[in-house]
Amino acid sequence: MTNFYPLPINETHDVTLQSWVETANGHPDFPIQNLPYGVFSLDGGARRIGVAIGDHVLDVSALEGVFAREVEEAFRQPTLNAFIRLGRACWQDTRMKLSEMLRDDFDSPFEYSPHLYPQSEVQMHLPFRIGDYTDFYAGIHHATRVGSLFRPDNPLMPNYKHVPIGYHGRSSSIVVSGTSIRRPVGQILPDPQQPPIFAPSRRLDYELELGFVVSGGNALGDTISIEEAREHLFGVVLLNDWSARDIQAWEYQPLGPFLSKNFATSLGPWVVTFEALAPYRTPAYPRAAADPAPLEYLQDERDRMLGGLDIHLTVSLQAQSMTDPVQISEGQATDLYWTPAQLLAHHSCGGCNLNAGDLLGSGTISGPEQTQAGCLLELTMGGRDPLQLPSGETRRFLEDQDEVVFSGWCEKEGFARIGFGSCSGVILPAKTSETLATLKP
Amino acid sequence: MTNFYPLPINETHDVTLQSWVETANGHPDFPIQNLPYGVFSLDGGARRIGVAIGDHVLDVSALEGVFAREVEEAFRQPTLNAFIRLGRACWQDTRMKLSEMLRDDFDSPFEYSPHLYPQSEVQMHLPFRIGDYTDFYAGIHHATRVGSLFRPDNPLMPNYKHVPIGYHGRSSSIVVSGTSIRRPVGQILPDPQQPPIFAPSRRLDYELELGFVVSGGNALGDTISIEEAREHLFGVVLLNDWSARDIQAWEYQPLGPFLSKNFATSLGPWVVTFEALAPYRTPAYPRAAADPAPLEYLQDERDRMLGGLDIHLTVSLQAQSMTDPVQISEGQATDLYWTPAQLLAHHSCGGCNLNAGDLLGSGTISGPEQTQAGCLLELTMGGRDPLQLPSGETRRFLEDQDEVVFSGWCEKEGFARIGFGSCSGVILPAKTSETLATLKP
Repeated sequence: MTNFYPLPINETHDVTLQSWVETANGHPDFPIQNLPYGVFSLDGGARRIGVAIGDHVLDVSALEGVFAREVEEAFRQPTLNAFIRLGRACWQDTRMKLSEMLRDDFDSPFEYSPHLYPQSEVQMHLPFRIGDYTDFYAGIHHATRVGSLFRPDNPLMPNYKHVPIGYHGRSSSIVVSGTSIRRPVGQILPDPQQPPIFAPSRRLDYELELGFVVSGGNALGDTISIEEAREHLFGVVLLNDWSARDIQAWEYQPLGPFLSKNFATSLGPWVVTFEALAPYRTPAYPRAAADPAPLEYLQDERDRMLGGLDIHLTVSLQAQSMTDPVQISEGQATDLYWTPAQLLAHHSCGGCNLNAGDLLGSGTISGPEQTQAGCLLELTMGGRDPLQLPSGETRRFLEDQDEVVFSGWCEKEGFARIGFGSCSGVILPAKTSETLATLKP
Repeated sequence: MTNFYPLPINETHDVTLQSWVETANGHPDFPIQNLPYGVFSLDGGARRIGVAIGDHVLDVSALEGVFAREVEEAFRQPTLNAFIRLGRACWQDTRMKLSEMLRDDFDSPFEYSPHLYPQSEVQMHLPFRIGDYTDFYAGIHHATRVGSLFRPDNPLMPNYKHVPIGYHGRSSSIVVSGTSIRRPVGQILPDPQQPPIFAPSRRLDYELELGFVVSGGNALGDTISIEEAREHLFGVVLLNDWSARDIQAWEYQPLGPFLSKNFATSLGPWVVTFEALAPYRTPAYPRAAADPAPLEYLQDERDRMLGGLDIHLTVSLQAQSMTDPVQISEGQATDLYWTPAQLLAHHSCGGCNLNAGDLLGSGTISGPEQTQAGCLLELTMGGRDPLQLPSGETRRFLEDQDEVVFSGWCEKEGFARIGFGSCSGVILPAKTSETLATLKP
């Protein structure tokens, strides 16, 4: 363990760096200071690991003699898991090498330019194989605002400021950005005086989240202390935790959300590493004098000083009638009550074993203002105040063919802006009962 | 799809069958009529697929020229997943071949006897790789009794008889029977007037469950109808959903159990196939006149007639001071309000994709009598009525070094008794804060 915290800011973060990949220079998401990882394919071919640089992706699976041998081997896998398992020293070394070979003063760019592909021509895939997916609830303004809708008398539970509340999500239904999302059918209770009905969700929603990618690994029964946590965190992705509010309201007691969430979760294609994020760390969410101090296993002075993330997020929506998406809300990762290290330390404090490729969702990121609501449930106050779209339409919840697009980026004086690209999905109509009937044997 | 339901009862179930493996004849769990699958190793060697027969395990990975080629290939894998994916026709065919080769009239047992190992000499492993684990709540007497402890005014939620309540569990911490269970440390609230503390759980419990092994597979956005469900179910295992009640009580609102459950889940070593269980199917849990009819997607007349499972279960406990375990409760799978087919149809009704090796926990199986409580929380009424052990000790919840042993079996007039073996675990003391401190970097 080293003593510096957060991760070092070094020459790879130098704002003056320029790349021989010209579209990288001034790119809002993928300048040379970012270097996020993803998995892509060409023309339906095999999946390969790539690094985003400007409008291009660099096929790092094709490079020989550049990286350490174990990195080369890991880069030939169809997912990032093997690379994620290699650990921080390897990630840092690889970042340095990538930075050097992509700088404009590099003497033989022609060696690597054949391995650049326009992002517009590749197909992106899930960047890593997710073992277990846990979704937290760390957005305190979300918890408060949604709590006031579901439980007006008791919006923020007494445990909220003590326990990083989380629950297990569904791994199998996590899809990469761009995958269409089928409106789920399920049990809903439109009239509490009547029995439930089985129907397409009428209150389909998105949830603006970040995903934290775990690099592993504690044995079952062991723990990861908050001081160790950063060594177990690889990177950050955009995450949309699609939610069917009507199914959720009827099913969630007493064991939490189930079918209301497990029909799909969208993941951004690019994993921005914690190394790249080093300049954009901020203090943890400030506690008011009346707020309880975190229990000791969640306390670390360095984490309190710089464990937060200064990431800006936006949500845009494009109805079928519209030619362009319109921004409908924005969010800030600084509104997360718990840091990634606190989430990880909490997750393992009882001995639960974490593995490389496990995914921790932050919970919906909302701010205190109504324009900073991270889902439609909040934005329209449960459908009471419909959203006006420029097309003249209104939205209480998502309609079929609506496309939802998340963006995220970091900006700081003296550093380059780096971003996550986007995480999007179009809503497909539910399979109706007629369609379902024809599917029956 | 064939039209018979439940699965056929055929010559493999004939009560008069005897095996040349003599310990199988009259064996309470593993007569020739059962033939459950597991994964074992010898002396720390590679994992192999085996079939329990009497006191032995038959190494089916070593057999050549007996099964179809795809079955032979699947049997050479270190988990059952590939075999599970092959589907019912293959499973049935393989069962028939296993039954024939193990019968006492088989003419060349010497061909296969070298591949028999005493169960006492092998190490058992998790029989299949679990993708996603879902735990249901289908034990209606459990839901009612526990509900009355957590919510005296509202024991059975209004949704209970409409929705097969379930939640996502943790896959990574599922362990095979015999693995010791470390008492978890976590946030608990011993005094509601005081802040929570971080301490070893004082209310550690078991939960008596069955696990249903999914054979796959629907694409994301598709559904599995209740009529199709049995084609997607491979077998049944014993399952102990260890639970820390004090952690659970403090953390579970509003998103359900998390660390109170994810420190460990124990799985029995033997998967009893639904083919083997064909004679022991029973009607689904009877609905009272006042009970709501299941919604149409959960209704199937054949499932109502024979979708239930007549499995007897017992829980035994052995404190460190005791020389033998003592039975402390019993249960019946007929007390599950929902059938395995209903659980599966519900799970997929919103489009959630299921995969081979997914595990569905039944929820705690309790009966209406106090001696039929499937966990200590119920058995001692939240610790109010301690259990008297023959050693003179009492138990409110589990103590360190306690061993919990589940057993399960089926009996029916005219058929052989078949069983699941046992699912056990010993409680290890929590890592104390002193130990935790030494683990810190």
